Formats: sequence, C-alpha cells, structure tokens
Amino acid sequence: MTTDARRHHDPGVRGFASDNYAGTHPEILAALALANGGHQGAYGDDDYTRHLQDVLRRHFGARAETYPVFNGTGANVVALQALTDRWGAVIAADTAHIHVDEGGAPERVGGIKLLTVPTPDGKLTCELIDREAYGWEDEHRAMPQVVSLAQSTELGTLYTPDELRAIADHAHERGMTVHLDGARLANAAAALEVPLSALTTDAGIDVVSFGGTKNGLLFGEAVVVLNPGAVRAMRHLRKLSLQLASKMRFVSVQFEALLAGDLWLRSAGHANSMAARLAAGVREVEGVRILHPVQANAVFARLPREVSERLRKRYRFYFWDESAGDVRWMCSFDTTVEDVDGFLAALREEIAR
Amino acid sequence: MTTDARRHHDPGVRGFASDNYAGTHPEILAALALANGGHQGAYGDDDYTRHLQDVLRRHFGARAETYPVFNGTGANVVALQALTDRWGAVIAADTAHIHVDEGGAPERVGGIKLLTVPTPDGKLTCELIDREAYGWEDEHRAMPQVVSLAQSTELGTLYTPDELRAIADHAHERGMTVHLDGARLANAAAALEVPLSALTTDAGIDVVSFGGTKNGLLFGEAVVVLNPGAVRAMRHLRKLSLQLASKMRFVSVQFEALLAGDLWLRSAGHANSMAARLAAGVREVEGVRILHPVQANAVFARLPREVSERLRKRYRFYFWDESAGDVRWMCSFDTTVEDVDGFLAALREEIAR
Amino acid sequence: MTTDARRHHDPGVRGFASDNYAGTHPEILAALALANGGHQGAYGDDDYTRHLQDVLRRHFGARAETYPVFNGTGANVVALQALTDRWGAVIAADTAHIHVDEGGAPERVGGIKLLTVPTPDGKLTCELIDREAYGWEDEHRAMPQVVSLAQSTELGTLYTPDELRAIADHAHERGMTVHLDGARLANAAAALEVPLSALTTDAGIDVVSFGGTKNGLLFGEAVVVLNPGAVRAMRHLRKLSLQLASKMRFVSVQFEALLAGDLWLRSAGHANSMAARLAAGVREVEGVRILHPVQANAVFARLPREVSERLRKRYRFYFWDESAGDVRWMCSFDTTVEDVDGFLAALREEIAR
Amino acid sequence: MTTDARRHHDPGVRGFASDNYAGTHPEILAALALANGGHQGAYGDDDYTRHLQDVLRRHFGARAETYPVFNGTGANVVALQALTDRWGAVIAADTAHIHVDEGGAPERVGGIKLLTVPTPDGKLTCELIDREAYGWEDEHRAMPQVVSLAQSTELGTLYTPDELRAIADHAHERGMTVHLDGARLANAAAALEVPLSALTTDAGIDVVSFGGTKNGLLFGEAVVVLNPGAVRAMRHLRKLSLQLASKMRFVSVQFEALLAGDLWLRSAGHANSMAARLAAGVREVEGVRILHPVQANAVFARLPREVSERLRKRYRFYFWDESAGDVRWMCSFDTTVEDVDGFLAALREEIAR
Repeated sequence: MTTDARRHHDPGVRGFASDNYAGTHPEILAALALANGGHQGAYGDDDYTRHLQDVLRRHFGARAETYPVFNGTGANVVALQALTDRWGAVIAADTAHIHVDEGGAPERVGGIKLLTVPTPDGKLTCELIDREAYGWEDEHRAMPQVVSLAQSTELGTLYTPDELRAIADHAHERGMTVHLDGARLANAAAALEVPLSALTTDAGIDVVSFGGTKNGLLFGEAVVVLNPGAVRAMRHLRKLSLQLASKMRFVSVQFEALLAGDLWLRSAGHANSMAARLAAGVREVEGVRILHPVQANAVFARLPREVSERLRKRYRFYFWDESAGDVRWMCSFDTTVEDVDGFLAALREEIAR
Repeated sequence: MTTDARRHHDPGVRGFASDNYAGTHPEILAALALANGGHQGAYGDDDYTRHLQDVLRRHFGARAETYPVFNGTGANVVALQALTDRWGAVIAADTAHIHVDEGGAPERVGGIKLLTVPTPDGKLTCELIDREAYGWEDEHRAMPQVVSLAQSTELGTLYTPDELRAIADHAHERGMTVHLDGARLANAAAALEVPLSALTTDAGIDVVSFGGTKNGLLFGEAVVVLNPGAVRAMRHLRKLSLQLASKMRFVSVQFEALLAGDLWLRSAGHANSMAARLAAGVREVEGVRILHPVQANAVFARLPREVSERLRKRYRFYFWDESAGDVRWMCSFDTTVEDVDGFLAALREEIAR
Repeated sequence: MTTDARRHHDPGVRGFASDNYAGTHPEILAALALANGGHQGAYGDDDYTRHLQDVLRRHFGARAETYPVFNGTGANVVALQALTDRWGAVIAADTAHIHVDEGGAPERVGGIKLLTVPTPDGKLTCELIDREAYGWEDEHRAMPQVVSLAQSTELGTLYTPDELRAIADHAHERGMTVHLDGARLANAAAALEVPLSALTTDAGIDVVSFGGTKNGLLFGEAVVVLNPGAVRAMRHLRKLSLQLASKMRFVSVQFEALLAGDLWLRSAGHANSMAARLAAGVREVEGVRILHPVQANAVFARLPREVSERLRKRYRFYFWDESAGDVRWMCSFDTTVEDVDGFLAALREEIAR
Repeated sequence: MTTDARRHHDPGVRGFASDNYAGTHPEILAALALANGGHQGAYGDDDYTRHLQDVLRRHFGARAETYPVFNGTGANVVALQALTDRWGAVIAADTAHIHVDEGGAPERVGGIKLLTVPTPDGKLTCELIDREAYGWEDEHRAMPQVVSLAQSTELGTLYTPDELRAIADHAHERGMTVHLDGARLANAAAALEVPLSALTTDAGIDVVSFGGTKNGLLFGEAVVVLNPGAVRAMRHLRKLSLQLASKMRFVSVQFEALLAGDLWLRSAGHANSMAARLAAGVREVEGVRILHPVQANAVFARLPREVSERLRKRYRFYFWDESAGDVRWMCSFDTTVEDVDGFLAALREEIAR
C-alpha cells in the first residue's frame, strides 16, 4: 500500500531516554490491521471493546470492568475523579507522576487536591500515609479519600504483593480507596514473577490505570475498575475528561494483542532484563553509582555531569536531577543486547576521557 | 506478522450511522508502519511532528502552528481554553457539538461558559451572534471572548468563505476571536471546491480544530493555530487537558499521509458524493423528506418512525429527533455506491410495506 | 461610639434600581449588636447558628438544615454542587440569574453544565423542562440532574404552590432534584399570602437558596436543605466554595431577626405593596407599558428610551433591554409612598416633555 | 431599636482559640450604622468603596487598587487566580493556610496547582523556593508563576522587610510574582513597628490579601493589588469566585474605620502585647515549652496533653498537633490583661495537679 507520508527517521537508532521513545510492537500493528475494515459502533460499542472485557477479566478477575482511554494522564485523572467527591483529596508520594509530571491535570481537570508525602524510594507505607490520613470530618481540610500508588514507582522500585495488601487494608479501614498507577504494571509483574492480579485484585486495589503505551502499544491505556462499588458513571467521566475514543476498536484490539497471549509479559520481561544487564554493567564502571534498587526497567545513576553530557551526544537519555548529576536510563521492549553493550562501552569511554 | 488478537467483526458490513463507524484508510495504516521502528523523542519531539508543521503550513499558511491531539472534544477544549481567560465565554449555536455532544467537557475541564443561540440551520450569523455579544465590561456577565463555528455544521450545512469572513470581521471588531470546529472541514472544502485556507486562514479564523478521525484516521485531530497572537502556552494547555500523546509520531504521520497529497480531498469528496447520491435517491422516495440542504456528507430526513425502525434492523443509523421521526444518514470515505444503492432499495421496500 | 469612618452619602436618597441598593433594616443592625461581645466558636460553632436551625425549621419543617453563606451566587453554587455529580447538568430558564448574572460561577467553580430553556415569562413548566430532560444514559450528554427554579423569577413573576408541586413531581419522577433560587422568596410568599413552607417544603423542593440581603440584611443568604437525602458534605462544599464565614454568628443572628418574628413578611410585603402602587400609577401614564404581571416587588416597563434617560438623571434604575427601551423598577423594604409618588410625578413630567 | 433576635451567649466569656472567635470592634459597628440608610449603588458602585481606594492608598501607595471581598479564603483564591494562568502553579510553605486550611479551594475553584515546600518555621527563603522554582518551559510541570507568603505565618513568625524584599526580587528575577497572605498583616506591622507599606509595596509584593476579620471586623477582607500590571479582570474574578458583596458599602466602611485612623494598629498591637504577656507568663511555668518565636499574636506551646485537656475545659483553644501535645493560644483585639492572667493562673493550677 502506498502512502503520501514518508519515512523521516532512522529506525535503527535507539536510546535510553524513555520506554515511550520506542515505537509500536509489530504484533500490535498487526492487530490494528485485523480490526480494520467495515463499520463498527463508535465510542466503545464495538465487538473489540466488548471482547476486551473478557480478556481483562482473565487477568484481573470476574468483576473487572475495563475502560480504554488515550493516555496515562487521562487514565489517572479519570480514575481519581471516579474515586473522589468534589471535596476529596488523594494521598500520594511526592515523586508520583500525578504530582510532578502531569502539568497539574488532576487539579485542573478534576479539582482534585493532592496531599503529598516525601518518601525515600518512591514508595508509600502505612506510616507515611498516616501523615496525611486524618481530619475527615474537618471541612477546612480537603478530605482524604484515596491513596494513589504507582507500580513500578517513578523511581523504578516495586511494592511486594504483601506491601500492597497492607496499604490497601490500611486505606480501606480508614474509609479510603486505593488507586494504582500501573503505567508500568507489566514490568512489575514480570519482575516479581506474579500474575497481574497478585498486584491488584488480590491485593485489594480498587482501580488500576493499566499502561499499554510504555509496553509497546501505539497508544492506549485502560482504566480497570476492580471494585465496581467504588466508582460511578465511569463512561460519563471518561467522556467529559476528553478520553473517549470514537474508533475505540483500535485501542481495544491493541490490548487484546497485548493481553490475550503473553506479549505483555514477553515485552515487559525483556525490558526488565535489559535494565538488569545495564545495571550489572554499570556497577562495574568506577565513578558511576546506581541510586535505587533496579527492580523493573529503569536504572537511576549518579555520575559526573560532564560525562553525562558527553554521553548524551551519543545516546538520548534524561537528567533526573541535573544539579546532582543524576540520570535515568530506561529500557524498553525493543532494547537489544547490542544496545546495552554499546551503551556500556560508550559509558566506559566517556568516563575514561 | 502473527498476533494474539483475533478478528471479531465482519469487515464487509457498513452502515450510515457515522463517519466514525468507519475504520482506518489503508494509506493511513501504511503510514503508521513507516513511522514505526527505532526510537523517536516522545511528546512531539520527533521528526514526524516537526515535519508535519510544514505539511500543514502548505494548507493553512506560513504562520500556522499545529498541535496534534487525540480527539475532537480534546481539540475543541484545548482550543477554547487557549482563546479564553478564566472569565471568558464562548458564543455558539445551540446545536453545536461543544454544547450538545461533549458531556459538558468545556465547562468541566476549562470552566468555560457557553452562550448559545438558536439557529434555523446550525449556522451563526452576525445578527445571531449579537444576541450574546455584549456586556464585556459587566462583571456579572461571563465575558464573550470567542465565537465558535462548525464547518460543516452539526446539521451538515456549510458556511461560504464570505459568510465566514463576515463573522470573523464582526467578531474581531468586537474584540473576540473565532474558533472553527473543523471535525469535517475537509468535507466542507471538498463540497465548496476551495482550499482549506479559503475557509480558515483567509477568512480570518484564529484557531481550527482540524478533524482527522472522521476522514479516515485511526485516531487523531489537530489544533491548528492560525493566529499565534491569539493564544499562549498551547503546549501546556494540551498537556493539562490530557491531550498530549507520548508517541506523537503516530498521530503526526497519519496527518502527513492525509495532507501531504490529496488523500484528505479524495476521502472527503467521496463521502460527499455518496451523500449526494443518497440524497438524490431519497428525494425520489415518496414519504421521506430531506430536512436540511445536503452540502457535505450528512443527510437528514424525516420519515415515518416505524419505517425507520424496520430499516434500522438492516442498516445502522441514528434517530436525530426521535419524537419527530428525524434521522441522520452519514456517508464516509469507505461508503460504496453499492452501499448507497442497497440502502435506497431497502428504504423503498420498507416504505412500501 | 466614635469611629474614624465618616458618612459619605445622603441617607435620604433612594431610587428604584435594586433591592440591594437599600441598606440594612434597623432591626437587623440591632441584632448585630446583640450578638457582639465575648468569644463564640468560629465557622458556625456558635450559639446563634445553632439556634438558627430551630428558627428555620419553624418555617421549613423539621428536616430543614440551614447553612448560612455570604451571598446569593454563593448560595446557588453551593446548592447546585450539592445536588450534582461531576457529570451533572442543571435545567433552568434562560433568564435565570444563575445563567445570566453570575459571571459563569456555576460553570467555573463547580464545572456545572447549564441546560437553558427559553420561557415567555421566566417560568419553567414541565413541558419546557422536557426539552432538556432526556438522555440520562448518554455519556455524550451532560446528565440532567437538577431543575433550578427562581421564586420570584428574574422577571418578577411567581409560581403558584401547585405549579411548584407539579414541577417537583415531574422532576422527581425522572430522578432529578429541584433547587429553588429564593433570593426573593419572601416577596413571593408575601404576595401569594402563603407560608414559606407552601412554596418549598410542601411543594417538594429539595434545596432552597434563601435570600436575606435583598430583604434588609446587611449581608447573608442561607442554603436551606429540605431533603437531606439529596445532598452530602454540605459543610465541605460551603468551605471549598469560599462561603464559610468565620464569624458566622453575625450572619445567623441577622436571619434570626428576620425570621423569628415577622420582619421578613413585613419587609417583603411592604416592598411588594410599593411595587403594586408603582404599577398602578404607571398604568395611568400614557406611553408606558407594563411588561410582565407585577406579582412581587419588580415592575418591568417599556417606554421611550429618551424618557428613561431623562428620568434616570433623577432616579437610579436599570435598563433591562436597552435596545427595546425596557426598564426595571425595583421596590425595597425602605421604599416609601413618597418615593413612589415622587417617581410617578417625575415619570409623568418626563413623558410630557 | 427592638429586634426579634435574642442574645444567646455570655459576652463576658473569652478564650484563646482564635482571633476570629472575637466579635466586632465597637468602632466598626458604629461605622456600619454610619453607612446605613438611603440607597447606594450595589456591587461596589458606592461612595464608601470609592472612598476606600484613597484610604488604602495612604497605606499601600498611589498605585494600590482595593477589592473588598468576604473572607480570607476568598481573598486568597481571587488573588491567586489573578496571578496565575490556567497552567500556573503557586509555591508555598507546606504549612500555608492556602494548602492546609482552605478545603482545597485554590485547586477546586481555580484549578491552581500548589507546589509546597517544608519549612522549619513557616517561612520560605530563596533557597526553599528554588526547590520548586524551575521547569518553566516544561509542559509536564505545572508552571511556577507565583510565590505565596504569609505575614505573619501560620506559625506566628514574621518576615523582616529585608527578607520580603529578597524573596520578591528573587521571584521577580525568575518571572514570578509574589502574593502575600496578610490575614494578620496588621499584627506583623505592629510587631515590627513599621508601616504596612514596608511589608508590602516597598518590599515588592504584587498582591496582598489584607485581613480585616481577625482584626475586629464583623466580616471582610480586601484584595489589594499593589502592582496592577500583574493582574487582569479583577472585578470579573471576584464575581465568578463568589466574593462580590452586593451591599459592598458595608464592607468598605469597616475598612475605613479600621484604616482611616489607627484602629488597625491599636487592635493589632494590643493583641500582640497580650500574646507577649502570655508568652512571658508561660515561660515561667515549668513543664510548658514555647515552640516558635512569639512575634505576633500567637503562642505555640508544648505541654502534657492531659494538662491541655483539663485546661480546655476552662478556656477554649486548639491542639495544633494533637499527637505531640502542641497547642496554639491566640490573642485578639479584645483579650484583656485579666484574661491572660486568669489563663496563666489556670495553667499553673492544671500543671500543678
């Protein structure tokens, strides 16, 4: 098939900037073609979205209700609105994506107050939650109604199933619900070698923002409601939050391709293993320090800033804390062994200069 | 390429419900593959989005700035926020999509007040605008800052370039800007046989929501700023409005495929011609009345409700005003002559029963 | 008691511009002094606010819960937020104060969508409501959850108790609740010679914005919840809507002064009778036409614009529709017979010039 | 003058809970009577509000523009909206009233993102500000546009004029403006023995929320714009934020009574001196520790919780941090020497039990 579009990039170039710098997994592209042709009901009234409900229930349990959306911020904002009243607040780590990386979307779109807590490693605990979990009767205080966790966290760390369960119980005892930002939930499950349900349904999570884009989708995330009693009017909230895809079949079929078989696990596991390989290599380089436990597909490291700057001319990646010289290296489903080894070689060269 | 997804629908079935019931044009799918592979900067920092600026400037003029987004409601809400202050209001027809079909998104996401005016045919005029265009100094009144038009309108009618120019001049004289909801702008340009610029840049429009999804894209719309002086912080507004795609290259390349050549015109012109054929056929059927001028790809008709109900068992389409028996029949890029003729035959059969 | 403030105005000058151009009734000022001195709990935790609950229950029934607030827009926005979800909409007359005179506050503060209906006289009917009361399941549509009435209306007209009952039943049957903007409810009750409950509790209204300022208070309105099951978290909503008075005793004692005896009725009845006197006089002046039934304390009239302009140099009042030459004359608790007669004489003089 | 209201409280009882537990200063009440009678334009179109502009300019300089509002949260939310765009954020201490005590009003009414910083004593510094002052070009980050300070702070501490100047310069150099929450600005000026301008206009503050209620007003605060170039559409913002008083003359005349002479200084200075007397007495009581420098009218102390609980049965006051046994004792314009000495005696008794 011809097209008036042209190729503008070199598909052989990969870096370590982000898992959303990667493109679309070929199996996902193939699924798009499968769903194409003919007419299908818009806005989710299509056979792919209906079928997707079953696919997700195999992973998240029989009560799961799946709402495909466009992107991760959208998933989080829809989920948090569904779990809060106009007077509600959300307790989160001060490194949480919803706080530092979404342009204030929860506040602006949903009027949601975030109550943030400093953490050493991006992970909340019951004790940390309690710093903000009080004052439900006090009208001067935004009412804490939700605890929002991320798995894996912004710092690439992981909660164990037991940690999640303890937090969920703690929150529920206090009348709060639990939201899980699972933009990289697949990486977490792959790393912990547990099914997705072990980190969500079985742990007592109420609503998950389940990520697809960072794990090889062209675009698409899903709000997965595990506890339908905790939410209302999800379809209305998705629509008014600008997250209702008209040709939703093309979001749904991507998730089917991801989750009907093991593509989700293959891709996430591969990204994790590339990060592990990268971390192992880095640990042997003098002058570079790994900053957080490398549990998923992110490696945080501290190294001389001028080394980073030289290295960034060869591979794209981000400073995490520019003043401290901290950087983040992400691996993705399409990172190759050669990419990692080449990057390590370049790192050693630049360190040695 | 294999995929774990399966086909769940019959790609040979098409109806007349909506142009977003159609799938993705094959040339668009081909473009997605072209942009795939390798790493590209996320969030618009990619070669496809950079190149797209030039593609759009060929259509909309040298000052045009293009911001790809996910969907039409998103495009409208970003555009209207960019054109209003916290205290602003938007004048629109009471049939406008932003008023009747977006779940209150402009009000909820942007706190935007809509000042709506009844119209006979979905089209605003200077006189109709003036019913709400007053009181700029009055703090008790939401300040009218924007006139929002749709081309084609919700009722399938069209503004001529002169009509658009007159409204834009009128609005500008009063210190207001003009937003154009162009979800079906391609259909309008095809029908009027003018370039896109004639209906936008040359007419004095400030910002366009340019539609892609209804004209064969998998997903994707674009906010095209024609008058950069009328807006600020577009990137921030797109992000906080949940409309920033991480793998934006895949939105941009679709628009390139649509607009670098003539795919936009071929697709929209075809949909229009199918609607014209349908209208011509309908006019010969006694007992069915065409309700609005058929100028783009929509046919509105009034017929006995029981006929519609029987017909709806054979072809999908919507009641527009169920109590009056009014229906809407939409044609799309993939509607075939056989589809139209088959539908007309079915209509004649059901009318005759 | 001395004060460093000085008098800057002539307390003998009164006009017909608005009932909030009037000052404070002397009995209200006296009440303020009574509540002064010593310390009382802030934010409503005071003996006056507690006592006020009983005072209001005598008028509105045993279930009534009273939330003093600052102003009418505040009362309306708190009430409407309490009655809507994030996805809700409010059906109102297109002349409603919440739509035309509150600067978009319902949309901006509460994200509330207004669905407005044209009316001949400012009054909704079941038929008019049904123009917007549909589509509860349709996520593309803001969900109609509330009918908002005003009594008296912006046009000075009144609903009978039966009309209110019919609307409330109609709304409730459709799963909607009913809000009454009672900024001038006292005028309505005085005019109809019924207790306040006949127009509210007994008619099935769920929440009332009960006006004080326009009936002689220094400041203060009250959200009176008649159906506690229809709302939640009123105290939180009042606070987050900037309507929580710290020294609330001074709002509450004003309402006590207004409602413990018959001050509310005396003041409102007097304003009404002055409007009736004014209307009777106007009807005898050739060249002036009364526009709406004069049922409360407002007189709407049409007269030559140049006459109005000369008259406005002698008495303050507002054009209602400047292009049509329509004006509004309001009477208040402190309007005197001499004021009315003097105004009529001036009107006759200016008409005769 | 008779009234149907009755006295429900003992005007001889005072505590140390809050300066808004106090009533209205008699000179303020006298001013209300002065402004009463006759008709005056509503919504600020009155002689008192016009005159007030001059009164405030004597304190805040010739460019000052004064917007009376209802309450402190309202003043802050109006001011912060005026200083931010839809994409803006506000840097504040994590103890700031706008963060911990306003029910999320800034987020909910204005969609404003707060970027909070822990402080030892409630005071921001340039260094602390810089923890959040970055990333203006980054659309993923809510754009820091305002630094919001409180004077005195929530912890009763004070900024010197030099400290304020340094922060304002620092903010301005980074393109940010400075908001001062001056709910207790009078106390600060009295304590520092400087004019109000020294802490505001001369220090480079852009907008002040100037407090009246806590310094003896019945109700009323004022947004004082010192840098008119930093804001737009103040009147519209005040209206849509539910803060526009219809009978504004009664807010304005109170501020005239407060500020035309030295009532503001007498009242605030008295409250401060009572706090100093209280602190001096407390320092002599073994087992009680003063927690922060007592610079204005607040005393924070730590003492055995059971002592506090017994003492609270005799005098009203608040726990500040219940788990730590920290309490706050506030003095107000009407606190007497006898009140303080009586309280100290009671404290000594309860400590000794």
